[in-house]
Amino acid sequence: MTVLADVDATIRSLREEVCRLHAELTRYELVVWTAGNVSARVPDRDLLVIKPSGVAYDRLTPENMVVCDLYGRVVDGGLAPSSDTDAQAYVYRHMPHVGGVVHTHSTYATAWAARGEPIPCVLTMMADEFGGDIPVGPFALIGDDSIGRGIVETLAHSRSPAVLMRNHGVFTIGPTARAAVKAAVMCEDVARTVHIARQLGQPLPIDTRDIDSLYDRYQNVYGQR
Amino acid sequence: MTVLADVDATIRSLREEVCRLHAELTRYELVVWTAGNVSARVPDRDLLVIKPSGVAYDRLTPENMVVCDLYGRVVDGGLAPSSDTDAQAYVYRHMPHVGGVVHTHSTYATAWAARGEPIPCVLTMMADEFGGDIPVGPFALIGDDSIGRGIVETLAHSRSPAVLMRNHGVFTIGPTARAAVKAAVMCEDVARTVHIARQLGQPLPIDTRDIDSLYDRYQNVYGQR
Amino acid sequence: MTVLADVDATIRSLREEVCRLHAELTRYELVVWTAGNVSARVPDRDLLVIKPSGVAYDRLTPENMVVCDLYGRVVDGGLAPSSDTDAQAYVYRHMPHVGGVVHTHSTYATAWAARGEPIPCVLTMMADEFGGDIPVGPFALIGDDSIGRGIVETLAHSRSPAVLMRNHGVFTIGPTARAAVKAAVMCEDVARTVHIARQLGQPLPIDTRDIDSLYDRYQNVYGQR
Amino acid sequence: MTVLADVDATIRSLREEVCRLHAELTRYELVVWTAGNVSARVPDRDLLVIKPSGVAYDRLTPENMVVCDLYGRVVDGGLAPSSDTDAQAYVYRHMPHVGGVVHTHSTYATAWAARGEPIPCVLTMMADEFGGDIPVGPFALIGDDSIGRGIVETLAHSRSPAVLMRNHGVFTIGPTARAAVKAAVMCEDVARTVHIARQLGQPLPIDTRDIDSLYDRYQNVYGQR
Repeated sequence: MTVLADVDATIRSLREEVCRLHAELTRYELVVWTAGNVSARVPDRDLLVIKPSGVAYDRLTPENMVVCDLYGRVVDGGLAPSSDTDAQAYVYRHMPHVGGVVHTHSTYATAWAARGEPIPCVLTMMADEFGGDIPVGPFALIGDDSIGRGIVETLAHSRSPAVLMRNHGVFTIGPTARAAVKAAVMCEDVARTVHIARQLGQPLPIDTRDIDSLYDRYQNVYGQR
Repeated sequence: MTVLADVDATIRSLREEVCRLHAELTRYELVVWTAGNVSARVPDRDLLVIKPSGVAYDRLTPENMVVCDLYGRVVDGGLAPSSDTDAQAYVYRHMPHVGGVVHTHSTYATAWAARGEPIPCVLTMMADEFGGDIPVGPFALIGDDSIGRGIVETLAHSRSPAVLMRNHGVFTIGPTARAAVKAAVMCEDVARTVHIARQLGQPLPIDTRDIDSLYDRYQNVYGQR
Repeated sequence: MTVLADVDATIRSLREEVCRLHAELTRYELVVWTAGNVSARVPDRDLLVIKPSGVAYDRLTPENMVVCDLYGRVVDGGLAPSSDTDAQAYVYRHMPHVGGVVHTHSTYATAWAARGEPIPCVLTMMADEFGGDIPVGPFALIGDDSIGRGIVETLAHSRSPAVLMRNHGVFTIGPTARAAVKAAVMCEDVARTVHIARQLGQPLPIDTRDIDSLYDRYQNVYGQR
Repeated sequence: MTVLADVDATIRSLREEVCRLHAELTRYELVVWTAGNVSARVPDRDLLVIKPSGVAYDRLTPENMVVCDLYGRVVDGGLAPSSDTDAQAYVYRHMPHVGGVVHTHSTYATAWAARGEPIPCVLTMMADEFGGDIPVGPFALIGDDSIGRGIVETLAHSRSPAVLMRNHGVFTIGPTARAAVKAAVMCEDVARTVHIARQLGQPLPIDTRDIDSLYDRYQNVYGQR
């Protein structure tokens, strides 16, 4: 009983968190209409909490978030889950350290994805958050495991919490849903700045050792401990 | 009596819907000042509901929406209807499946229209919503049927619910006014992303069969059933 | 007595109108910090109402608007008037049909001004509102009549209510302050769209007769009569 | 006692001011997530007030601002100060006329910084506020005095209150925190306008004497006295 009650409280709290985090996607204009979503893993359970499919951001409530198992089957919820649930479930199954996943088609990052071109690490903020270039994953159709597999295989070779899926958009991961949302916000910000820098010439490179040094400090010293 | 009362209730509800949907045009910055509008067909009646001409978006009320017949003549309303009413009425007369029409001069879509260049389908989101390229219609002056005819003839050869009218702007259609607004929002979003992708090189093409597969799934599986 | 009371009521009403119209400048992001302003002529009086200098937009009130004569001398007001007052007073002195003037450094319009390049009329919306290209005025220093003279001389050869002052920004005029604000909003909108169209090629030209036809209709038929 | 009470009142007032000024950074979209900050010197004390590290802008309160000495050591505050505190403390130690410092990664300014290219003074607004080009400082890692030294040395050779730190972002200074925020807002505005002007050609230069004349007038005549 106590264990079940704890799980209930955790899921209730994650429903609130996942619902609320969608407001960051609209605040930073990473999404239009209903095209983007946030999910969170239920810790120590093979479950995730995700946005319902095709529901407007200002209609989201903790109650209409959908709880699914890690194969994307609905466990609790009256609405169909996001059509990206299968891809995100695949990520949770294969990356046990991931606690949150975000998907957007944010403009500048998706423009790099349309050309199939990684974003080069030419900003200290990029070194801090992404530890190097933001990589490009394969073109993949929705409907089977190919998007999920593309995300996992691409991120396996990178420190970046963001991947640009070719001709599609961005997926980001994090230890929490909030960290994944932060990565989505930062990804669009650096995608835009590097794009604009490139419009009038070539950005200056940053030395690999400096990238490593910035990444280490930011991951270990920045923020409140 | 009952039939008339039903029509009254339907029109009242469409006045509210059409009025409210204009807030999506400003929210997504598809329009400035008074330059853009939404209309809806009154089902099973040869009538439409549309924005009044030259009235600021924050002055719109359900009451000042204008009801016209499908030749653009005012049937109910104290204000002159949008100067785009004739074009939209033409669309309703010739496309019986259309329940809503939207017109904007949204920036990036209008930039493609100024060059007379279709937007190539290089994003999965574009395949989903538009099923291919977004086509360009002819240059047409306001004042007779040429805009309406240009819209209808161009859309007849496309799955796209959006058409870029040359040197002018965007018209979108949908089974409902809300669907037409969604198409207008998505049109500007993909116009912007593809533009930005093109600024630094060539976007990678998507195979026609993949476009078909994405379009079919999105039209039939996405969202709540 | 009655005449003076009428003037008082007119000025009070213009203080409110001029104050309120600044909210359109911030809404459409035509200005940052305190860099832009609106003024209105007091009809049948050699007076104008204008923003105080260097005061933040959210601190503007009808009471802190400044009333000046048409040589820029303060007639009523506790604060120094906008540093653009002399230029705007010059316009009112030399263009008796002008009832409102607006000045901004809106981004895209100012970018054309920095290159000293008129905005070509390649959009129907531009033909409607500006009746042709938006012209460029001379480089002029603040401090004497040169800005005002540059505006008046440039607009004398154009139907456009907007002029791009070289390396500086935009001045717009109108029969009312509201019309001048509309011209400032539309000027930035078309400056942006034409810029973006030009980034990937050449916009298609519009025939001069079509421009004339669009301009005539818009000036005489659009909106509520 | 009285002296200490005065210091207390000053610090209380600066906590409010510094907290409130962060709202200008988000209003003008100079920052995302937590990536940017404002600080103020406590007059006549070797102290500064600064944002806490990694705290979201809508969680800032006067109480959670951090008071540090001019070597970045916390004197009063329950949270760790911004990771930019050392750099800003260095500026206060070496530039006694500076009362406020701001740091952002605003998009267009950072794009110039990524190419290591100063922003040329081709706008009257730039001459007014910056008195010439906005200069570029060296690439510098966080963790010792190199960022602070880079700022101070670069600004020593310029009238500009803004410096673009290579591959990094913007630091601005001012006699007050508010003036430094204004410089950060204006820096991004001119960075954007000059960038856009350059996309389609070369902006026209402004004569050095004209720049001097504009700068002198703006610094001495603009605003309320």
